[in-house]
Amino acid sequence: MPTSAGTIDAVRDLKALLGARASDSAAVREHHSKGESYHAPAAPDVVCFPASTEEVVQIVRISQRFGLPVVPFGAGSSLEGHVQALRGGITIDLRDMNRVLRVSAEDLDATVEAGVTRLQLTKALRNTGLDFPIDPGADATIGGMAATRASGTTAVRYGTMRENVLGLTVVLADARVINMGTRARKSSAGYDLTRLFVGSEGTLGVMTEVTVRLHPVPESVSAAVCSFESIKGAVDTVIATIQLGVPVARIELLDDLQVDAVNRYSKTDYPVMPALLFEFHGDSDRHVQDQAESVEAIAREHGGRGFAWATRLEDRDRLWQARHHAFYAALALRPGAQAWTTDVCVPISRLTECVVETKADHAAVPFPVCLVGHAGDGNFHLIYMLDSGSASELDEARRLNDRMITRALALGGTCSGEHGVGFGKMKYLAAEHGEGLEVMRALKRALDPDNRMNPGKIVDI
Amino acid sequence: MPTSAGTIDAVRDLKALLGARASDSAAVREHHSKGESYHAPAAPDVVCFPASTEEVVQIVRISQRFGLPVVPFGAGSSLEGHVQALRGGITIDLRDMNRVLRVSAEDLDATVEAGVTRLQLTKALRNTGLDFPIDPGADATIGGMAATRASGTTAVRYGTMRENVLGLTVVLADARVINMGTRARKSSAGYDLTRLFVGSEGTLGVMTEVTVRLHPVPESVSAAVCSFESIKGAVDTVIATIQLGVPVARIELLDDLQVDAVNRYSKTDYPVMPALLFEFHGDSDRHVQDQAESVEAIAREHGGRGFAWATRLEDRDRLWQARHHAFYAALALRPGAQAWTTDVCVPISRLTECVVETKADHAAVPFPVCLVGHAGDGNFHLIYMLDSGSASELDEARRLNDRMITRALALGGTCSGEHGVGFGKMKYLAAEHGEGLEVMRALKRALDPDNRMNPGKIVDI
Repeated sequence: MPTSAGTIDAVRDLKALLGARASDSAAVREHHSKGESYHAPAAPDVVCFPASTEEVVQIVRISQRFGLPVVPFGAGSSLEGHVQALRGGITIDLRDMNRVLRVSAEDLDATVEAGVTRLQLTKALRNTGLDFPIDPGADATIGGMAATRASGTTAVRYGTMRENVLGLTVVLADARVINMGTRARKSSAGYDLTRLFVGSEGTLGVMTEVTVRLHPVPESVSAAVCSFESIKGAVDTVIATIQLGVPVARIELLDDLQVDAVNRYSKTDYPVMPALLFEFHGDSDRHVQDQAESVEAIAREHGGRGFAWATRLEDRDRLWQARHHAFYAALALRPGAQAWTTDVCVPISRLTECVVETKADHAAVPFPVCLVGHAGDGNFHLIYMLDSGSASELDEARRLNDRMITRALALGGTCSGEHGVGFGKMKYLAAEHGEGLEVMRALKRALDPDNRMNPGKIVDI
Repeated sequence: MPTSAGTIDAVRDLKALLGARASDSAAVREHHSKGESYHAPAAPDVVCFPASTEEVVQIVRISQRFGLPVVPFGAGSSLEGHVQALRGGITIDLRDMNRVLRVSAEDLDATVEAGVTRLQLTKALRNTGLDFPIDPGADATIGGMAATRASGTTAVRYGTMRENVLGLTVVLADARVINMGTRARKSSAGYDLTRLFVGSEGTLGVMTEVTVRLHPVPESVSAAVCSFESIKGAVDTVIATIQLGVPVARIELLDDLQVDAVNRYSKTDYPVMPALLFEFHGDSDRHVQDQAESVEAIAREHGGRGFAWATRLEDRDRLWQARHHAFYAALALRPGAQAWTTDVCVPISRLTECVVETKADHAAVPFPVCLVGHAGDGNFHLIYMLDSGSASELDEARRLNDRMITRALALGGTCSGEHGVGFGKMKYLAAEHGEGLEVMRALKRALDPDNRMNPGKIVDI
């Protein structure tokens, strides 16, 4: 419930503006108090569901008048506490801004409202011959994906949101609307505001429209799975594949425990050993076959065995369904457990070292830890399956996460490859960026001097 | 010659710091008064040749103490007046910071000092199986290329400096050294400082080290040239090629006058018609052949004729030498002329319109105008060959340039695809970015409140 007089007045003004699309009911506020993470929830005072950029402008004006925080909310699938309203205020849920505004088959781009989800966009592209391949797993909103600089399994070939957002419409803290970027495929006309805002997690403004690059649906697709005696053999296969310039579309690494979990959950029968899953995209069957053959030869050199190549749609689907359900498969190892998912990313040459040492940390822990990685990027995720009630398990997970991130930074990596910072990883930014963190603070101060835009995330000023 | 007392003292301190590597001789100052452009020169008071980031820090401290501007200088090949010392001060020539610090074949990246040139890096990569494919034409420095967000013929496949710079070391206006970015292939850990500084043209700080992505040398390469009845047929071929997902490495468009110029200069005999030059990179000869065959079929559908496919190295070299010399070929059309080179970039679907209308502008002008474009990006260049002494020709070129940029912006494009802003294109930024220009000013103010870093470029505060 709103407590201060200012908040009560703000809620009144928001209801006057939006009617039932501004809600301070306990249920709605609670629903917007958290993403999909282990972090403690924090509810906003009021939740708004604007239908246009202009309504977002009006909401931000009200936030300005009453000095209230603004927290953007997409699908609620974020993992580091990005949507927690740590200091109360106004959550802006963009679910009603869900129109695909424009698709250009000629220019291979589209403009969507920020609340459009990945699957919704994919559906809108049916029969265009085009695809938006960035897939973080969850059916996140395109706005949320841009805000967290998301990526996923296909980044090794198609890049992350950094490479695939061409332009943004953003409402700033002072309610100005900025159209940034260009539909031209490149530009050297001034500072790259688009890239500054991609990954800024709502701390510099609220994204309301996103222009993204699209990619031709490949003429031919195949997949493969291969098991390895060791993580090292798997990672060396990845390095050699990329060095050779094989334009592989996906290379996913699963550790033995994750393979076991997948087998149990998805009724597959992969050897319980580290495994690589591949997807190949090409402009002809021949090209895809060439890629698969190149990779099979590389894998064999590095101790890979049972390279199973799947060209039929149902076989590929089965394989990628298994991968897609890896998270649920992990959860099923410990029914009722709460999952804590974390990620780091290191230069690929250090991936073996980082994975092997990290797994050694898990030897004696009292809960299952699964590993799945976007190995082509040097990025991997851990899933800690915790007893929800156990403070000691949470502490242990915290310690493991700390150790892994410290290790990744020491190896020249980053504390988050694709989940973002939120408030969960703020404490690692000083170690990662040094004085650069002060530069980030200066930018935040320049664009949001009152610290109203998603305060308490990435940097505090 | 230094005029104010502050400047005299600064020069004294710089000479004490650097000895002969700080020079206020007329010849050295004049050499640093301009790039390769029609813009009026403007010499600095003093030129420094630091050998390390630490010396750059000391120079910036002196600039701070005496309130003097700092202008970074690479190869001097910039085209929009980036290196003119409009308000005097200290030019920092990075030519002595020319060490390739690190090449990682496993991670496909390298770190170089900012003064390393493109060809120097290419040479250092010999026998590694890797290449740095970004080629703006000139043998620019990697620092200069990062500062102007350069690209060139291969951007359609490998991206621009935006996609290929992984990290930077920058000395800020207050002499702090910031290491930004990461060698991890992706990160979502905070604001993307690297991308903010790429393309900032020295206005936010001086780049001293650059970490770039490398790419495997393709197993197989071929090239082709094809003539078209009309520009439209050529551009439609480009659009269809990209829609089909053919991963073409270069698609260059030459207009009939430029083809004629090339024939005369390089002793080639291409039909004097609009032409497309292609390069195909693949992981096998078969793949490259498939690409060329796909494109040949597309070109034929769009009125292309005489598709000449070159697989032999000497034939390819001849073709790309001809393209590489397009600028000199244009110059030779009017011996003694001064060249003014400009560029715009539009969504590819608007490229035909933009090119055809722009060429109509040239019908009655008294000087030759050649057109050459990176058509796969929607980017094209004009070269105006002007009588150096003629104010009326310069005025006419100014008018043509204005009209072309206004047109490109109206078509959803940008006032510069790859040359940057310098001071030559500042006047177009308000029309292109609207309120976004105010955001750029706020960022500049946050990082360089005294406006000492390359003042008078991109934005003034």
